[in-house]
Amino acid sequence: MPYDSIRTPTLLLDEAVCRRNIRRMAEKARAGQCRFRPHFKTHQSLHVGRLFRAEGVRSIAVSSVRMAEYFAGDGWEDITIAFPVNLRELPAINRLAARVRLQLLVESAESVRALCSQLRHRVEVVLKIDAGYGRTGIAHGNMQKLHKVAGEIDRCDSLALVGLLAHGGENYHAHSVTEMRENFTRTRDRLLDCARALRDRYPALYVSVGDTPGCSIAEDFDGIDEIRPGNFVFFDVMQQQLGVCEAADIAVALAVPVVALHPERNEIVVFGGAVHLSREAGHDEEGQHFGQVVLLTDDGWSPPLPGTRVIRLSQEHGIIHSTGEILDLLHVGALLAILPVHSCLTAECMRGYRALSGNAVDHLAGLPFPASFPAEDSDTPSVSQTR
Amino acid sequence: MPYDSIRTPTLLLDEAVCRRNIRRMAEKARAGQCRFRPHFKTHQSLHVGRLFRAEGVRSIAVSSVRMAEYFAGDGWEDITIAFPVNLRELPAINRLAARVRLQLLVESAESVRALCSQLRHRVEVVLKIDAGYGRTGIAHGNMQKLHKVAGEIDRCDSLALVGLLAHGGENYHAHSVTEMRENFTRTRDRLLDCARALRDRYPALYVSVGDTPGCSIAEDFDGIDEIRPGNFVFFDVMQQQLGVCEAADIAVALAVPVVALHPERNEIVVFGGAVHLSREAGHDEEGQHFGQVVLLTDDGWSPPLPGTRVIRLSQEHGIIHSTGEILDLLHVGALLAILPVHSCLTAECMRGYRALSGNAVDHLAGLPFPASFPAEDSDTPSVSQTR
Repeated sequence: MPYDSIRTPTLLLDEAVCRRNIRRMAEKARAGQCRFRPHFKTHQSLHVGRLFRAEGVRSIAVSSVRMAEYFAGDGWEDITIAFPVNLRELPAINRLAARVRLQLLVESAESVRALCSQLRHRVEVVLKIDAGYGRTGIAHGNMQKLHKVAGEIDRCDSLALVGLLAHGGENYHAHSVTEMRENFTRTRDRLLDCARALRDRYPALYVSVGDTPGCSIAEDFDGIDEIRPGNFVFFDVMQQQLGVCEAADIAVALAVPVVALHPERNEIVVFGGAVHLSREAGHDEEGQHFGQVVLLTDDGWSPPLPGTRVIRLSQEHGIIHSTGEILDLLHVGALLAILPVHSCLTAECMRGYRALSGNAVDHLAGLPFPASFPAEDSDTPSVSQTR
Repeated sequence: MPYDSIRTPTLLLDEAVCRRNIRRMAEKARAGQCRFRPHFKTHQSLHVGRLFRAEGVRSIAVSSVRMAEYFAGDGWEDITIAFPVNLRELPAINRLAARVRLQLLVESAESVRALCSQLRHRVEVVLKIDAGYGRTGIAHGNMQKLHKVAGEIDRCDSLALVGLLAHGGENYHAHSVTEMRENFTRTRDRLLDCARALRDRYPALYVSVGDTPGCSIAEDFDGIDEIRPGNFVFFDVMQQQLGVCEAADIAVALAVPVVALHPERNEIVVFGGAVHLSREAGHDEEGQHFGQVVLLTDDGWSPPLPGTRVIRLSQEHGIIHSTGEILDLLHVGALLAILPVHSCLTAECMRGYRALSGNAVDHLAGLPFPASFPAEDSDTPSVSQTR
C-alpha cells in the first residue's frame, strides 16, 4: 500500500493539485497583463519553486533574507524580500545583492539612511504602503511621509525606487467574496493614489498587491502591475471557509496515525498535534477547529469526512470529533489525514513534505539548525543597536 | 555587546534560571520521596538533559519514539514514552527496547495485543488513566475496562504492567492555585482508586502524575510514586499567569529585531511571528496576547516591560503594543525580546537555542528534515492498516 511506510505525522503533497493551482494563477496574471511574483513563504521548497519555473515564473517574493538565499542558491535571480528590511542582516543582504536582482522593502527614512550608508551594491527598493490593513507600512493617506521617504531614497545613489507594495491582509477577516472584492479594489485604488503622488519623479513606479484571497477572487487586475499571492499554491481550510477555493484545491494533508479511539464520545486521538499542524484555529458554524479530516486513498485523499473535525490540540495529540460510522471504520494503528487550517504554518512546522509518489520534498526549515546561526561576519554593520 | 551577532529571531536560554528550576523541582521530588521523571518534550535538548543529569536525574519521559531515540543516544537508559503507543512505529520501538529500559503507554486491549504479537523484547507498560481531563486514557471510573486491559497484559509474557499514569491537563484551565491543588489531589485519588482495584495482582504498581502547574503548587506528594512535569524547566507566560511561577523563573526569551515603529499608535513591528513564537495565545485582563516583552541586558533580560505585549502575529511579523516612553528608547535595527506564552511550542518552532554565553544549544527539531523519513524497515510490522 502506498502509505505503509508512513509511521509518524507526515505532510503529504499532491503535486497535481499544486501544479493546477500554480497554472490557474499564472494564467490569471497573464490574462490580467500583470507580472506574477508568487510569494514563496508558503512552500519554502526548491522543488515546488521548480514547478513555478515550469510555468514561466522568473520573479519571486520571500519574507526573509535566509529564504532569499535559499532560492538564490537554486537559480532564482529576481527576488523581492517582502518584509520591512531587517537592518541587522545587512552583511547577508550585501552578499545577496552581489548575486541577484534584489528588491528591499522600506517604510521609513531611518531604514533608507541605514541602507544608503551600508549597502555596497545598488539595490531596488519598494515602498511598503499600509492600504488599510493596519499592520505596517506608510499609511496610505500620509502623503507627507510618502514624499519624505521617497526623497530620502532620491538622495541615495545606491538605491532605486521601483514600486509600491501593499498586503490586503484584511481579506482574512472578510465575510463574503463581495467584501473581498471591495477590499481588493480599495487597496489598489489607495496604492494608485500613492503612485500618482510620486508620478512626477517616478513615472514608471509599479504597483504590487498580494494576498491569496484578493488575487483569487478578483475579476480583473486593472491598474495593477504585479501580484504576489503565496498561499494559493497549497490553499487550506481557512481559504476554503473564506470561499476562495474548494476543498479539492487543497494540495497538502497531514497524515496522522490513530493512537486511541473513544467511541463513547465519538472521539479519535491521533499522533498529530500543535507541533505538527500549528495552533492556528479555524472557525465554522460548529465553533473553533484545527482542521478537516480526510481518508487516504490510492491516489491521494478523500473529500472531507462529514461531521469530522479536529477539535482540540495538545503538543503532540490531536483530538478529532467524528461520527460512530466513521469510528467503526478505524482501528488503532490506522492512518487518517488532516487538511490544515493554515498551510503555511503547517508546512513550516513539518519542515518537509512527502509527495504522493513517496519522494521527500524539501522545505527550508528542514535544514539543520546551526545554519540559522551564521558565523560572526567580518563585515559587521555599524547600525547603532539598543544592545 | 553580547547580542551584536544576533541578526534574526533567536531563542535565548538563561541556563542559570533553567538550573534553578531543575534544582527546585528535583528537591521537591526528593522531599516528597517521589521518583522525578522529568518530561523532556519541553526542551528536547541533549544539553539541557545533561543539566538534569547533573541533578541526579536518571529517568525521563518523552512524547515520541524519535525523542526517545534522541535521548537514548546520549546515554539515557530509563525512558517512558508518555504518549499512547503508536503501533506504526513498532520496528523502531523494538530497536529501542533492545538498548534501554523502556516503558510504553497503553490504554486499550487492541494496543496490548498488537504489542504482544510484535515486540521482540520484554518491555514495561504503563496504563494511561483519564483522571478527568478527558483527552485520552481509560476513564478512571471504568473498572471493567481497567481489568480488561490489565488482563490482556497479564496474558502476554513480553509485557510487564508497572504503573498507572495520568496527566492533569485541566490545570491549564484553572482559575486559582486552590483549584489547581484540588485538581491535583483529585487526579491522585482517582489514580489510587485504580491502583487499589488492581492491587491483588500488582501490589507494586506505581502511580505517576504529570503537569507543571500541579507539581509546582502541590504541597506534598503523598501517595504519589513518580512526578513527570516538563514545562517547569523553562516555564512561560502561561504558567506565570496561572500563578505557577514568577516572570523571573522564565528561562527562555525570543530575541527579535525591530523592523518598524509606529509611534502614532504606540506599535512596534518586529521580525518574529507565528513561525517563531507559535500561535499559542495567552489571555490577561487586557485580552488576548502572544507574549510579554523585555529588554536585553548584559546578563540576560529585564523584567517584563509595563504596558507592553505582543498583540498580533503574522507568519513572520510580530506587532507589539507599548507606550510612548518605550518607543522613544527604540529604533529600527534594535533588539527586543519576547517571553513566550508557551515555551514548549516556541522551542519546537525555533529548533535550537543560544545560551547567554553565545553558545548554540541543540533541540531535536534542529536535525535535518530527512531524518524524519526513516528508510523502509525490513521488519515492517504486520499491523493491519486502513491504508
